[in-house]
Amino acid sequence: MSSPPLPADDDGPYDRRSARKRQAILDAATEVFLRHGYLGASMDEAAARAGVSKQTVYKHFADKKRLFSAVVTQAVAAAGNPVHEEMLRLGSDSDGLDAELRAVARQLLQRVMRPEILQLRRLVIGEAGRFPQLGRVFYEQGHARTVAELTTAFERLNAQGLLQADNAPLAAAHFTWLVLSIPLNRAMLLGDDEPPQPAEIDRYVDDAVGAFLAAYGGQRRSGR
Amino acid sequence: MSSPPLPADDDGPYDRRSARKRQAILDAATEVFLRHGYLGASMDEAAARAGVSKQTVYKHFADKKRLFSAVVTQAVAAAGNPVHEEMLRLGSDSDGLDAELRAVARQLLQRVMRPEILQLRRLVIGEAGRFPQLGRVFYEQGHARTVAELTTAFERLNAQGLLQADNAPLAAAHFTWLVLSIPLNRAMLLGDDEPPQPAEIDRYVDDAVGAFLAAYGGQRRSGR
Repeated sequence: MSSPPLPADDDGPYDRRSARKRQAILDAATEVFLRHGYLGASMDEAAARAGVSKQTVYKHFADKKRLFSAVVTQAVAAAGNPVHEEMLRLGSDSDGLDAELRAVARQLLQRVMRPEILQLRRLVIGEAGRFPQLGRVFYEQGHARTVAELTTAFERLNAQGLLQADNAPLAAAHFTWLVLSIPLNRAMLLGDDEPPQPAEIDRYVDDAVGAFLAAYGGQRRSGR
Repeated sequence: MSSPPLPADDDGPYDRRSARKRQAILDAATEVFLRHGYLGASMDEAAARAGVSKQTVYKHFADKKRLFSAVVTQAVAAAGNPVHEEMLRLGSDSDGLDAELRAVARQLLQRVMRPEILQLRRLVIGEAGRFPQLGRVFYEQGHARTVAELTTAFERLNAQGLLQADNAPLAAAHFTWLVLSIPLNRAMLLGDDEPPQPAEIDRYVDDAVGAFLAAYGGQRRSGR
């Protein structure tokens, strides 16, 4: 799903210029897709907004499907990086597992509830009947990647006796959805893109981590 | 959000004829909305498919928004009835709480994962940015109603010592999402409307009820 490599004649200073243009096209295309939907968006408008020629757009992205995939991949991957960093810390912090899991949950909420990510999610869901390949990029770069990384972390926590999650991928999915489902379902259906207030985030985080540790907490914890 | 009452001149035998026509319009409109989306659907096509005049459609539903609300209300409410019946049984069965919760979870999955309900959900999510009122009907008739009914049941189970859920509405939402999130998120993004196989349903049900009881099971249970 990654974008094609830059053409061979883009060496030296052109390399950076080409990368800048690619980024400008992606930024412009994100706006165009969110404004007009997948079907209504055109490569021409993305080119005009990015201030590049149509040929330049096609040099970087062979067709609309690949342009959209690149938009989703970039948006979802960029949003996921802070979550990834918090996951690497799980089991290493003297603050204890509760605090570490809360930090992961907080990053996850802040990532998924960003207006641009909510809007892209609605767009791919609305088109998933006609263009399931658009949703697949979103699914694989977002949820599937998060669950895979959390699974690795939870296996480490199992070995440390901090969790008791025989089925680590299931526990990872349960953690993710205990954190996200309530606000995400509301936002999806009610069209509300306002990010949750800090007090709401605290509540979602506490509720989710509390239920998760009650279900999956290991023997080294005192339990609730 | 309920549809307007039938006009006063529809008495006697006309009452039933009017109700039949109303149902025919709703069935036809469901197809038209799912085929063309909200924006692309027309009252005219719904009338033609139902075999009634355009005036008859407008007599029952003042505009497209109300017609769509009635379509969603009917689809979601009809799908919810079996879940409701299983919830009323919670805490009364000699099979024990595990079996009863599994029955609720199974009905919930079968309701939400019906192709027509999945397609309507995608449609309202895709339009939620422009028409949040469409998603509100779906949210209130679906998830909000389920959580409200489960909350009542869980308060009863708390009093019986079968659950230990201090925050019953939260426990109800957690139950719902432990059951639904994994298959629903997949279906939404991947556009896969094939209902889950019986063995998959069994697994989702067991996984969800297991985690839920580990988190919220009461002292009268032996625990996992």
